Amino acid sequence: MLTIRPAIATDVPLILDLIRALAEYEREPQAAVATEASLLRDGFGPEPKFRCVIAEWEGAPAGFALFFYNYSTWQGQPGLYLEDLFVKPEFRGKGIGKALLLHLAKLAVEEGCGRFQWQVLDWNQPAIDFYKSLGARTLNEWVTMRLEGEAIRKMVEEG
Amino acid sequence: MLTIRPAIATDVPLILDLIRALAEYEREPQAAVATEASLLRDGFGPEPKFRCVIAEWEGAPAGFALFFYNYSTWQGQPGLYLEDLFVKPEFRGKGIGKALLLHLAKLAVEEGCGRFQWQVLDWNQPAIDFYKSLGARTLNEWVTMRLEGEAIRKMVEEG
Repeated sequence: MLTIRPAIATDVPLILDLIRALAEYEREPQAAVATEASLLRDGFGPEPKFRCVIAEWEGAPAGFALFFYNYSTWQGQPGLYLEDLFVKPEFRGKGIGKALLLHLAKLAVEEGCGRFQWQVLDWNQPAIDFYKSLGARTLNEWVTMRLEGEAIRKMVEEG
Repeated sequence: MLTIRPAIATDVPLILDLIRALAEYEREPQAAVATEASLLRDGFGPEPKFRCVIAEWEGAPAGFALFFYNYSTWQGQPGLYLEDLFVKPEFRGKGIGKALLLHLAKLAVEEGCGRFQWQVLDWNQPAIDFYKSLGARTLNEWVTMRLEGEAIRKMVEEG
């Protein structure tokens, strides 16, 4: 029996566990340096920077989706951007990932979002195939560029 | 003489012109269906979905940058996401694009953002080279996936 509910502040330790488990799955465990304090500040303060839902299987935490708005200037509409989706290994094969995506797709419709978008690692072909089976398409012509941490400060200092 | 200032509600017609000019440059002019009403609602209401700065060259509007927060669960920090950057053709070669990027990099530092990120079309090698010269790197292993408009509704209906 699956339920999906919005995360609350007391879920922060659970959310951090799930973030770390996902980073491990994505082969970059050392990159997950978020802390309970930072997630509490950014997700559950006066101006939340993200939203999160928890999937529970017979009352036990089984997975999560963490998301926020982006914006399409072409559509003139907000979009829903899915940053993290993860189901614990022992709860896979029960349709929980699809249920989380469906939950967010419904939110996107309810909140007037013209797009529902996320990123996937190019070696994760089973995930790509699964997402395509739900109607998603890959945007192969768009390349993501990033300045991170020290690189941002260096750019500012060098003017 | 260049100035960069936050956009205000009366800039909406200008912003829409710049969005349309960028969509034309990106070879998808028909995709820019945003209206003045939608930009006013989403950028200048009680809960803005985006922020925008206008670049002016000797008082004349020369370009813009439109951006919003995203969130890194690995860093446990918000990031700055640049959706649109455009300089009108007649104002190019004056360093306005770089000044807009630098303006946003400063905002990113001031606002505690761990990343400053955007996307570029894979055929736009001059832009990619320019961004790399500023310290940005390409995230080639991440593929963007998208459900759009009718595809979102279809997924919801089919459950």
